[in-house]
Amino acid sequence: MLVVMKNSATPAQVDRVVETIEEMGYEAQPIPGRQRTAVGLIGNDGQVESARLAGLGGVLEIIPVTQPYKQVSREWRPEPTVIELDNGTRIGGRELVVMAGPCSVESETQITDVAVRLRDTGATILRGGAFKPRTSPYSFHGLGVEGLRLLARAREETGLAVVTEALEPDSVELVAEYADIVQIGARNMQNYPLLRRAGRCGRPILLKRGMAATIDELLLAAEYLLAEGNRNVILCERGVRGFDSHTRNLLDLSAIPVVKSLSHLPIIADPSHGTGVRAKVTPMARAAVAAGADGLMVEVHPEPERALSDGAQSLYPEQFRELMAQIRVIARAIDRDFVPGLERRSEKVG
Amino acid sequence: MLVVMKNSATPAQVDRVVETIEEMGYEAQPIPGRQRTAVGLIGNDGQVESARLAGLGGVLEIIPVTQPYKQVSREWRPEPTVIELDNGTRIGGRELVVMAGPCSVESETQITDVAVRLRDTGATILRGGAFKPRTSPYSFHGLGVEGLRLLARAREETGLAVVTEALEPDSVELVAEYADIVQIGARNMQNYPLLRRAGRCGRPILLKRGMAATIDELLLAAEYLLAEGNRNVILCERGVRGFDSHTRNLLDLSAIPVVKSLSHLPIIADPSHGTGVRAKVTPMARAAVAAGADGLMVEVHPEPERALSDGAQSLYPEQFRELMAQIRVIARAIDRDFVPGLERRSEKVG
Amino acid sequence: MLVVMKNSATPAQVDRVVETIEEMGYEAQPIPGRQRTAVGLIGNDGQVESARLAGLGGVLEIIPVTQPYKQVSREWRPEPTVIELDNGTRIGGRELVVMAGPCSVESETQITDVAVRLRDTGATILRGGAFKPRTSPYSFHGLGVEGLRLLARAREETGLAVVTEALEPDSVELVAEYADIVQIGARNMQNYPLLRRAGRCGRPILLKRGMAATIDELLLAAEYLLAEGNRNVILCERGVRGFDSHTRNLLDLSAIPVVKSLSHLPIIADPSHGTGVRAKVTPMARAAVAAGADGLMVEVHPEPERALSDGAQSLYPEQFRELMAQIRVIARAIDRDFVPGLERRSEKVG
Amino acid sequence: MLVVMKNSATPAQVDRVVETIEEMGYEAQPIPGRQRTAVGLIGNDGQVESARLAGLGGVLEIIPVTQPYKQVSREWRPEPTVIELDNGTRIGGRELVVMAGPCSVESETQITDVAVRLRDTGATILRGGAFKPRTSPYSFHGLGVEGLRLLARAREETGLAVVTEALEPDSVELVAEYADIVQIGARNMQNYPLLRRAGRCGRPILLKRGMAATIDELLLAAEYLLAEGNRNVILCERGVRGFDSHTRNLLDLSAIPVVKSLSHLPIIADPSHGTGVRAKVTPMARAAVAAGADGLMVEVHPEPERALSDGAQSLYPEQFRELMAQIRVIARAIDRDFVPGLERRSEKVG
Repeated sequence: MLVVMKNSATPAQVDRVVETIEEMGYEAQPIPGRQRTAVGLIGNDGQVESARLAGLGGVLEIIPVTQPYKQVSREWRPEPTVIELDNGTRIGGRELVVMAGPCSVESETQITDVAVRLRDTGATILRGGAFKPRTSPYSFHGLGVEGLRLLARAREETGLAVVTEALEPDSVELVAEYADIVQIGARNMQNYPLLRRAGRCGRPILLKRGMAATIDELLLAAEYLLAEGNRNVILCERGVRGFDSHTRNLLDLSAIPVVKSLSHLPIIADPSHGTGVRAKVTPMARAAVAAGADGLMVEVHPEPERALSDGAQSLYPEQFRELMAQIRVIARAIDRDFVPGLERRSEKVG
Repeated sequence: MLVVMKNSATPAQVDRVVETIEEMGYEAQPIPGRQRTAVGLIGNDGQVESARLAGLGGVLEIIPVTQPYKQVSREWRPEPTVIELDNGTRIGGRELVVMAGPCSVESETQITDVAVRLRDTGATILRGGAFKPRTSPYSFHGLGVEGLRLLARAREETGLAVVTEALEPDSVELVAEYADIVQIGARNMQNYPLLRRAGRCGRPILLKRGMAATIDELLLAAEYLLAEGNRNVILCERGVRGFDSHTRNLLDLSAIPVVKSLSHLPIIADPSHGTGVRAKVTPMARAAVAAGADGLMVEVHPEPERALSDGAQSLYPEQFRELMAQIRVIARAIDRDFVPGLERRSEKVG
Repeated sequence: MLVVMKNSATPAQVDRVVETIEEMGYEAQPIPGRQRTAVGLIGNDGQVESARLAGLGGVLEIIPVTQPYKQVSREWRPEPTVIELDNGTRIGGRELVVMAGPCSVESETQITDVAVRLRDTGATILRGGAFKPRTSPYSFHGLGVEGLRLLARAREETGLAVVTEALEPDSVELVAEYADIVQIGARNMQNYPLLRRAGRCGRPILLKRGMAATIDELLLAAEYLLAEGNRNVILCERGVRGFDSHTRNLLDLSAIPVVKSLSHLPIIADPSHGTGVRAKVTPMARAAVAAGADGLMVEVHPEPERALSDGAQSLYPEQFRELMAQIRVIARAIDRDFVPGLERRSEKVG
Repeated sequence: MLVVMKNSATPAQVDRVVETIEEMGYEAQPIPGRQRTAVGLIGNDGQVESARLAGLGGVLEIIPVTQPYKQVSREWRPEPTVIELDNGTRIGGRELVVMAGPCSVESETQITDVAVRLRDTGATILRGGAFKPRTSPYSFHGLGVEGLRLLARAREETGLAVVTEALEPDSVELVAEYADIVQIGARNMQNYPLLRRAGRCGRPILLKRGMAATIDELLLAAEYLLAEGNRNVILCERGVRGFDSHTRNLLDLSAIPVVKSLSHLPIIADPSHGTGVRAKVTPMARAAVAAGADGLMVEVHPEPERALSDGAQSLYPEQFRELMAQIRVIARAIDRDFVPGLERRSEKVG
């Protein structure tokens, strides 16, 4: 950490900074410059309360040099984290992974039918909301526990693994009982009690980036999970708040190579929420894979125009099939594998 | 709600939109135009799943005409909501209200000493975090229940009301037991289980705007509280995510007149989190009052350079005193009252 | 255009809106709703001064239904615009196009050497700044006319077409004399005198999206060019202002499918300025192609660490070669052609 | 400037950074830390091409310590710049200044009538567009030179000074002939040829912040003017691109105290463009003054509903009069003077 002084700072002010750093238990190293002095803080363990220094007289600004996160960083663990699910799906390795399904679980027929079609076209993980966070209190909020049960039944039927969202600390264990991956949604990225509980639930966690979260904040949210002992964390870029109204959010694909360089955790993209518009989902899904994502989360609904939520951004099953074919080619361009689910199964059988 | 068709939309596509609207239980009214047709949806009760229409063939875009919120809107209730606390403080009326105190409760001496000084200079509500949401898992997270007790003791000592944050559904009742106002922080603005519980806790709620929340989303979050029967809601602008690094956030003061025109709920501003820099707090606090805010939430710490959190944005008590004097004059310019706490007390006594 | 009234609007206020619309020469159609009345404006020719209506009593908001642009829109011209350059390069058709080169032209050796390598690896258009817009007045501002001459010489040498930026109206003709494509930079997207002059210069124009420009504003800027009679316009996404500091800008790839659905003009992406970081250029270049871009503009420098500008985002020639190979595969996935430059030439020769 | 190395950087990579810094003509000072090494660059004269260092192997990031601007900075000149116009108006001193008038000059009656009313209520500078930058090529673009003549005539009539915009380098001198202050609009903040010409025109310049410009970029744009010898520069905050649709832009009032701490130049606010909505102009104008702005630029139109541009954000003359009265009180709260125009004149006469 570097404490940059104003060029008008007095020697006494510089001394005060040095003393404060030492009071805090670190070492201080003044660095005189042509225009101004800076004071280096040596020995930063990630717990320095920089605001304390920022408020001292003569201080122009505080520049963090040490990264604020630890266990999530690639400097902590150079090799990529690979997460393996019960159904054999591996996330973070050479293979691309596709999670797909409707926004909400609506009925047994809906979820099982779509699951069968998804398995047959390339997904290995089924998504579907049982507990839905909705902007308006008057919207449909999901089937709750019944939704979890239907997801589990679809898993039995198809062999797909299940990812679904937990909305509050008290229901994390419940969700973890039914799901293979517990999702923490974008609105809850900094819901720390939820993160702590998720960190202790024993299941892999899919952590979505908040709408205004910097990459560092996303990594720090993941750090909460790792700090509780859960190393199986998958990050997900799903769009940040933008200023153009042609899409619902602004899918920030540059987050993918940035996360890859900073962290060992896998990262996938959600082009459905990231754009909010069906016709943009396929191009942005392809782009995410080309940018290096470890996988995709895509909304697919057998009859989008009758969906109880997010119909406008759900692909038709035929569109999803076409997307899978395109991704297969792109995977080759970047030296990744993508064997759609069914084929892999046949291969295993064979 | 208006469904705008592409100019290439076929009559059959327009018919399909009309049918879908009728299937959903509303009335449809086609409006032919020079370039394109639009279809009005009449009878919108705020529960229309617009995504269902957005995904139909030939649809260019969906334009909401009805506001998505109800009970929070000024059209629902034209006169302003005024909230009265046990210590006589009124929020949302002619009088400006000032909530002040340290970021975190740190010790009995710290909180009581600062409370006395604040009461003597103008605040009538004491702020102080007992449960602190922190970006890093390794930072100080507050004293917890002990912090709540210290706040209650400072209230006994000074007569100030207390506002403090609840972080999770299960602790809302606990916080409500000690606090006069329960705060929902910016990171939790869309934490719906927390909102629902807060809506049933029987205390006024201070709801902070999320960092990427639109005004409509803020009002919809408040709608969750009102939908649970809690009408005593205070909104708070505390800065949105901006792109300039000279301040921590971008304090969006235009939210104040916008909220005032859309809703009957009081709105205050938090220039401490809104700027993150001590020297900018006073000018932005003045500006918030001049923009029409019903009050302020300001961090004040007796020794900011020793604060366990947010020291860099905390005012010194002397700076706070000066700010109160300036606000008193500004209040006059906009026909509001501001009688700093102590004086009011003397007046009551006399 | 729809004028939405407040629910408290009086019949007299609705009448005043109707009268004003008629005074402005359009037809008005009131649309009564359950909560509020709206008034449709029929016959919008794209010149309605909506602000005049927005300011009337009782008006809640104005909703544009007609798109504000004309000649650039896909509704005006359904088939895609394809631009053909003297060296045979076609932009906007099935073939992907790659523009590459250093940020600035620095010397004859630098530009000619790099041009030869680029031609041999896949580019058909050479980029290089002769007039450089720089944030600081004290930075290197380009070689000026001498830079144009060196570009022309590199073209003679290699057969590559040349794209370079014009900074002011008076130099548009000069730049057009040397360049095959005249670039309008992001900072000048709304420099209307420059646009008007560019619209009359007789050369194709590469128009970069401004850092805070919506897609509609980008298309309206292009409309200035078409309104002057120049139909050969190439749009370019090069990153908008974001809030994360790990990249210089936020490359908004969703702009690509959005522009494709709204306009017939070709659109390319510039991942070099879009990220500002060399290691992110290749993944984002691939992503842009996968998202449907008609091509790329990429900075390549033989010795980035000695570049006079933008060295940190310039690819090494070897990295560029590898990128070209990857794009070739991705092109296949989306049914586009990409035959790197040299091969095409051999094929022609052969 | 600080070059922060990755913790995996090799000694050879650190050496390469040191050598490169020395090659560039500066001094290098390695600073070993617990997690990583950093290398300080000593002797930065503001012309370091940091990208060259950012691209070297093993470099994590470049941290600027020296500010990139010089002559505009408060460290260069500690006392505030005060600009005095021919009619006695002083900008940047204790007195607040108000520039007001219609968006566009439309006719002699319109501009003279409004000028008389403005002078009588507090403005000392008349604004009015003769050359108008408009997002659409089909909108009204101003009366041109005729507009300039009408402004000059209004000045003769009223004694108000005149501020109006120049859109292109070639017309700067023409505008400077008629105007007391030449305005550079937000869209042209980084139009460097225009800035250079404006820097040499001999008139004070009003420089508006671009919609996505950081404060540092605004100051660097001003640096272009000072670098040409023009020290009479007034900055103007007029709203940045935000994500909420209830206002046209997001007026960033925190820019005011930030600029005040970094620069000696005066800064005013434009709440008309900053909000785009008449009802928000008055509260935000008051807020700007309370935040410490040196003045305001406000659109006032005698008949906003008939304005040829920006009618929705123009105040009625009566609203302007009321605003002036409120500002007078706020000025007192912050120890500034505001004697509306007419009174000052009477005082001079008396």
